[in-house]
Amino acid sequence: MNLLLLESAELEGGPDGHFLARLAGRRAEHVAEVLRAEPGQELRVGVIAEGDAAWPAGARGRGRVLETAADRLVLEVALERKATPAAQTEPRVDLALALPRPQGLHRILQAAAVMDVGRIDLFRSYRVEKSYFSSPSLRPDEIRRQLLLGAEQGLRTRLPPVKIHPRLRPFLDDPGLLAPGDLGLLAHPGGLPIEAAPPSAERRVVLAIGPEGGFIDYEVEAFVARGFLAVDLGPWVLRSETAVVAGLAQLGLLARSRRQNTAGTSHFAC
Amino acid sequence: MNLLLLESAELEGGPDGHFLARLAGRRAEHVAEVLRAEPGQELRVGVIAEGDAAWPAGARGRGRVLETAADRLVLEVALERKATPAAQTEPRVDLALALPRPQGLHRILQAAAVMDVGRIDLFRSYRVEKSYFSSPSLRPDEIRRQLLLGAEQGLRTRLPPVKIHPRLRPFLDDPGLLAPGDLGLLAHPGGLPIEAAPPSAERRVVLAIGPEGGFIDYEVEAFVARGFLAVDLGPWVLRSETAVVAGLAQLGLLARSRRQNTAGTSHFAC
Repeated sequence: MNLLLLESAELEGGPDGHFLARLAGRRAEHVAEVLRAEPGQELRVGVIAEGDAAWPAGARGRGRVLETAADRLVLEVALERKATPAAQTEPRVDLALALPRPQGLHRILQAAAVMDVGRIDLFRSYRVEKSYFSSPSLRPDEIRRQLLLGAEQGLRTRLPPVKIHPRLRPFLDDPGLLAPGDLGLLAHPGGLPIEAAPPSAERRVVLAIGPEGGFIDYEVEAFVARGFLAVDLGPWVLRSETAVVAGLAQLGLLARSRRQNTAGTSHFAC
Repeated sequence: MNLLLLESAELEGGPDGHFLARLAGRRAEHVAEVLRAEPGQELRVGVIAEGDAAWPAGARGRGRVLETAADRLVLEVALERKATPAAQTEPRVDLALALPRPQGLHRILQAAAVMDVGRIDLFRSYRVEKSYFSSPSLRPDEIRRQLLLGAEQGLRTRLPPVKIHPRLRPFLDDPGLLAPGDLGLLAHPGGLPIEAAPPSAERRVVLAIGPEGGFIDYEVEAFVARGFLAVDLGPWVLRSETAVVAGLAQLGLLARSRRQNTAGTSHFAC
């Protein structure tokens, strides 16, 4: 836990930007028994942001420990008003994932929170095992728990919304899947090299990743018909969870490189 | 299991490139009960390569099922002689990792086998918990098991050698860590953007990744003094296992992009 995350509703007082937070449960126990904090000590804190919540949602700051015990933590919280950390990394990258096996899903949710994904859509695909859709991992509280674990580790305050689509067709036919101007990328071996479709700050990116066995041809065609480009992440046969991290890391690199090129410095030897 | 991996010693006969393999245990059970193969069916097979073993080590081919049961599998194996898949992806990328927590190590070993890492050095670093060095995860048979799981999933036949360094200093002072001409990259927030040090096919790359809490200043200086460049993978606070995949994915992208630039086609908008 690199960042102690608070709910807006847990903050008391605060017209001057100072709040009191009284916590119990997992966080109190962690602070007392893992961090072994003492009264007076300061911790990095953040306020969870979901959807379009206004300040202090998304804010970060410091929490001074007033009381600490295994079942009780009282903090005096000072939040920064500047540059809201709820603002997203640019470009905004959303994930559209064939529902992965439950074990992999945990790690994908954590990584997506760390890597500041905008939203996550989990959809049915031909090679997804039906049983995955009845996994307890898909309960909203369990999804939120994994996002929180990621956000705490990765110093994020924003939790991406997650939606489950038990049928592929309505998901594909939703005009919000890929709006005009969005860049849709479908990770698929043999596609264009991903660097052929570099993201720019102003275009939302939707990265679609298939199930472990890959998309079937019909699915590839359906995404392409809706404007997605099939792109190749590299010469590897990756699990979903590895493909998500590899794809997000490559998009981050391409976006940064493009920003730097635009600013007149090229780091690529071309 | 996308590829059934065999040991060279399990192959009988074969002067004409055809072999017989008689297997029991996990693989026989998987083929009978998960794949539900029938006699006559063909499976993708590979022969495990460790170190500089000669053909058929590293080869891939087809295995025709002659007999199958939960505790018995007999295959007739035909191996390809062409382009040995044991040859590595270029550039060769080796990993130098501060020993991660055991749970993360499993996934790192699997991902490293999938992403064709050359070798893996696990070293002590200031922020590595001492208890990790006595974890059963570091037993050679357990390390090999994880590499095999990765190789089976990622269609690889080569298993990278793994070495454990319980002391940092001798590891750093080994001249083999970074030979003249090698490109040493140390993942570190605030370093150069990784695209400023693009790999080329002929230079071995060593990617060093710190523990969850990051390297301490002394360690960064020690790596830099030995020729490593501190590079930044992106605006994220990543776990070791995520940093490994992100770094390998970015190096793969940069190497491919450089090959394409050299060949006269640039996919970067510069």
